[in-house]
Amino acid sequence: MPITITAFDHSPDGGRGLARDCRVRWALEEVGQPYEVIGVTFPELKEPAHLARQPFGQIPSYHDDTANLFESGAIILHIAQAWPGLLPPDPAGKARAMTWMFAAVSTVEPPILELENAGFTEREKPWYPERRAALEARIHVRLRQLADWLGDKDWLEGEFTAGDIMMIGVLLRIAGPDILGRHRALAAYVARGEARPAYKRAFDAQRAWNTR
Amino acid sequence: MPITITAFDHSPDGGRGLARDCRVRWALEEVGQPYEVIGVTFPELKEPAHLARQPFGQIPSYHDDTANLFESGAIILHIAQAWPGLLPPDPAGKARAMTWMFAAVSTVEPPILELENAGFTEREKPWYPERRAALEARIHVRLRQLADWLGDKDWLEGEFTAGDIMMIGVLLRIAGPDILGRHRALAAYVARGEARPAYKRAFDAQRAWNTR
Repeated sequence: MPITITAFDHSPDGGRGLARDCRVRWALEEVGQPYEVIGVTFPELKEPAHLARQPFGQIPSYHDDTANLFESGAIILHIAQAWPGLLPPDPAGKARAMTWMFAAVSTVEPPILELENAGFTEREKPWYPERRAALEARIHVRLRQLADWLGDKDWLEGEFTAGDIMMIGVLLRIAGPDILGRHRALAAYVARGEARPAYKRAFDAQRAWNTR
Repeated sequence: MPITITAFDHSPDGGRGLARDCRVRWALEEVGQPYEVIGVTFPELKEPAHLARQPFGQIPSYHDDTANLFESGAIILHIAQAWPGLLPPDPAGKARAMTWMFAAVSTVEPPILELENAGFTEREKPWYPERRAALEARIHVRLRQLADWLGDKDWLEGEFTAGDIMMIGVLLRIAGPDILGRHRALAAYVARGEARPAYKRAFDAQRAWNTR
C-alpha cells in the first residue's frame, strides 16, 4: 500500500500552501517518499467514512502499511521516525526536535489561528478592531521570544529538523509585511524554509492539486 | 542527574492541578520514575536563566541525563519513549498515541484556552457574553466529536496511553457541570483518569507543592 494522505478536494486558500497537507507533503519530500492524495470535499469531511479517518472532520490524515494517523504534527513525527533526514541521530537532538514540533502547534499557532478565526467571525462586529489589536499583540510577544531563541542560527536547533517544518508551516500563515515582516530574522527563517527544494516540490504539488 | 522539572513556584490555581507540570508528574508516576522540582517565580519566568530552558517563559521544562525539553506534550512523549507503560508496543499503536497527543493540544485545547483568556481579558467588555457563547459553541463541537470517537471505550484507543494523559489534562480545564458535564461519556472518561493511582499521586504532589 502506498503512502496516502487526505487533503481538501480544493483548498479554500486556492493553493497558497496554507492547508495543513502542505506541511505533510513537505516532510515526505524531505525524506524522498512518494505519496498519493485522496481529495475530501467539504460535505465529505462530516461523513462517517472520513470521520473514521479523522474524528474532528479535518484534513490531513495519513495512511501507510503500518499506521493510520491524523494531526499534521503526529504525521510528520511519524515520517521523521520512519525515514532519515528530519531528526538528529542522538536522543538529545530528537528530544529538541519534538519540543519544537509541539511548541509550534501548542504555543505559537493558537493566537495566529485565533486571529484568523476572528477575521472570519468577528470582522463585522463593533469590537473587531480592539480584538484584532489584542491578538496581534499576543502574536508579537511569541514572535519576539522565538526570534530571541533563533538568534543568528539558520534553524531552531542549528541543523534543519521536523521542528522547523512545523514552525515554518505555522509562520507562513502570517507571512507578509503586517505581522511576520516586523520580525526580520523570522521572515528570513521562513524564506530559508521556502527555498528548500523539498518545500518547493511540496508547494508546487499542492498548487497543481488545488488548481486542477 | 535525577529527572528535574520546572513548575510554578506557586501555581496561580492554588494546587487544583491545572498547571501543566501536573500532566508531566502524572506521566512520571505512571512509569514509576522519581523526579525533583525546581520552582520558578513569575519574575523568574522572564529571566535569562529560565528562558534558556523555556524560550517562551512558560513551565514546565524537563531535564535528565540525555535531554532538555519543554512543552508538556513533548516531555510526555519523551517519557513514554524512555520507559514502558504509556505507548503500545506496535508501531500502529504508537502512531495512534502520538496522534491523540497532538490532537489534545492542537485541536481540542485551543478554544478552551481561548475561553480562559477571554475570561481574564474580556470579562468587563460589553461583548463578553456574545464572545463567551461563541467560544462555548466551538468547544462543544469538539467535545461531541471526541465523545463520538470514544464511544463506550475506556480510553481513546482502548488501552490507556500517553494520549489519554494529554487529552484528560486538557479536559480537566473545563471540568464541572457547565461544559464538560454536558458530555456524560467524557466526564466519565476524565473521572477514570483521575481514579488512576498514578494520577492521584501526581495530583497530591502538586497540591502539596503549591500549598507548602
